[in-house]
Amino acid sequence: MIEAHGKNLVNRTCTPQEREERLKAACQMPVLDLTSSEVSDIYMIGTGAYSPLKGFMDSADYQGVVEGMCLKNGVLWPIPVTLAVTEEEANNIKPEDEIALRDPASGELVATITVSDLYRYDKEKEALATFGTLDTAHPGVKKLFEQKAFYVGGEICQLADDTKAFPFPEYAGPAKVRQEIAERGWKTVAAFQTRNPIHRSHEYLTKIAMEVCDGVLIHPVVGKLKEGDIPADVRLACYRALLQDYYPAERTLLRVYPMEMRYAGPKEALLHAIVRQNFGCTHIIIGRDHAGVGKYYGPFDAQNIFDNLSESDLLIKPLKFDWTFWCKRCGGMASTKTCPHSAEDHVAISGTKLRTMLAEGKRIPEEFTRPEVAEILAAYYLQL
Amino acid sequence: MIEAHGKNLVNRTCTPQEREERLKAACQMPVLDLTSSEVSDIYMIGTGAYSPLKGFMDSADYQGVVEGMCLKNGVLWPIPVTLAVTEEEANNIKPEDEIALRDPASGELVATITVSDLYRYDKEKEALATFGTLDTAHPGVKKLFEQKAFYVGGEICQLADDTKAFPFPEYAGPAKVRQEIAERGWKTVAAFQTRNPIHRSHEYLTKIAMEVCDGVLIHPVVGKLKEGDIPADVRLACYRALLQDYYPAERTLLRVYPMEMRYAGPKEALLHAIVRQNFGCTHIIIGRDHAGVGKYYGPFDAQNIFDNLSESDLLIKPLKFDWTFWCKRCGGMASTKTCPHSAEDHVAISGTKLRTMLAEGKRIPEEFTRPEVAEILAAYYLQL
Repeated sequence: MIEAHGKNLVNRTCTPQEREERLKAACQMPVLDLTSSEVSDIYMIGTGAYSPLKGFMDSADYQGVVEGMCLKNGVLWPIPVTLAVTEEEANNIKPEDEIALRDPASGELVATITVSDLYRYDKEKEALATFGTLDTAHPGVKKLFEQKAFYVGGEICQLADDTKAFPFPEYAGPAKVRQEIAERGWKTVAAFQTRNPIHRSHEYLTKIAMEVCDGVLIHPVVGKLKEGDIPADVRLACYRALLQDYYPAERTLLRVYPMEMRYAGPKEALLHAIVRQNFGCTHIIIGRDHAGVGKYYGPFDAQNIFDNLSESDLLIKPLKFDWTFWCKRCGGMASTKTCPHSAEDHVAISGTKLRTMLAEGKRIPEEFTRPEVAEILAAYYLQL
Repeated sequence: MIEAHGKNLVNRTCTPQEREERLKAACQMPVLDLTSSEVSDIYMIGTGAYSPLKGFMDSADYQGVVEGMCLKNGVLWPIPVTLAVTEEEANNIKPEDEIALRDPASGELVATITVSDLYRYDKEKEALATFGTLDTAHPGVKKLFEQKAFYVGGEICQLADDTKAFPFPEYAGPAKVRQEIAERGWKTVAAFQTRNPIHRSHEYLTKIAMEVCDGVLIHPVVGKLKEGDIPADVRLACYRALLQDYYPAERTLLRVYPMEMRYAGPKEALLHAIVRQNFGCTHIIIGRDHAGVGKYYGPFDAQNIFDNLSESDLLIKPLKFDWTFWCKRCGGMASTKTCPHSAEDHVAISGTKLRTMLAEGKRIPEEFTRPEVAEILAAYYLQL
């Protein structure tokens, strides 16, 4: 089994007994309210999905990441994982304080943090490092610029039960997924990150991955998405229908994870890879404009960033793909790498056009979307 | 560029000027007649396709290969490459003799050998080591058992011009193919070994390889085949038609090479891999029953044999595939690794049935064979 990133899988969760005690103690602590992204990150840290992180980044880790994609211990890390507080909140916190972290949406105390340090940060510097742009039309930049002005670093202890926070039967943390991979005897596993329903073009990527690896982990994000993205429960209905009819069960694993997308393109592709290594995957599918949004990144930036890493930076390997489509002349799925024919021969529907067609009850070509998936999407768009 | 097997690409050919002089000298030497397989091996050795071999194996290399798949210098080698002589011929040869080697089919002196040693060998031991069987119904075993009783070891000098011996525009030696790969800037190249026309199932394998590698080398054998196999010129017409209509030229290279098949299954798969590494490939497609014949090998023997090698034994990596087919329910090409449907949904035609259909002028489903290829095969079978 592939090692966790930085070697050992972190576990900052607690057993039901510990939870009761710690919750009691947490009720006596000062409380900070979290954003939805910070709540997601609690679960990512707590379950080890962000191994080797044990908490929110202190100043040294943060500077290392922003300036050189590297934690202070030398481990590759592409994107800050931070907890933001206001100046007023910061004035009431000092190192070694224990603070309870609350999800304001549920009112639940989801974690405690042992403060290591507090620091002001440079939003423009972080935006450029992470997103490569200062444009607030970028959803990641917008969120960052609206964020509180100080960061609190420190190791966390996860109190909330993440499996209850994401009530999908497909929800599983890294330790569980690693166990499932081991039980299936897969030596090589390709992860497929997605925040969208799987149309045939992406099905094709996963099928190629299955040809060259022992199994595939279909691994959608179920953290909060940007406006216009399709909700997790609708997507899950699509994934289930697709897998049931078109994937061999013994070589496919559908699991979801709680991260919130940053839309940071290449830097996020690295983060997705690190997370998948922690989930026990040896490969990750990186298509065109992976984790991108708008036109901020070149189509292959998220693939090329892997080329500058050294062997020891990251054990998981990218499987890089180009445009994929049904080609009428090929009479099958193909890609710009394998098909010599012209665009007129390719079945292509833009996202906008697809939504319109679905909302208007129009039939989607089977070469583009499996009918079982189109039916679920149509029902969703019709009720919007 | 990937290193040649054993590090340096061997070159035992000569320039046109050298050829003239050496031919003159060779005319004064005693002469041995070669089998067609030995002639092929001359070209494989001479051009470096068999690097690091510089000649026919001496006793130490031969014993190492038969007993432990290893040359005396420690380099992996799976199958003897030998020159057989009768006892009578052996009696007239001694170490350090220079002997001219003649292709009796053309009467041409194709090489000279500087004899290092002469040795009797154990045909049953070699048959078991190479083919895993003593059954003379196996074409490789049959050829071995009919072979002369002694082997002559020694380095060779290739006199004949191999590019003229195989008058196909697609013929090219390893140095030339390496140069073509370098010019195209391919960092990863998958080789596809074949002795058959390419039907859609094999096209699919090459297309998957193209998705994960920068380019593909379609690399058919044009050495003598067993009875019933389709001649090289007919196959080449099929390859050309297929590539022209269904492959992107900038990612595909069709080249042929002069080896004669051994039908040695797993051991030959390793030999095919070594040869492709010498041709500059980083990957080789290994399907079910690669280089097999009859039912002598398990369907995955030729894949599993790679698992027992250490990293340094072989740099080229296998791309392993299972049955592939058009699946009506998937609505596309698929394999036992990717398709959950049953055999009734798969378009499958046995080799025997295909030949009958073609010979009777019946239409072959496009899901099985491209019409451009079927047409050429039909014309061939109709005139048989």
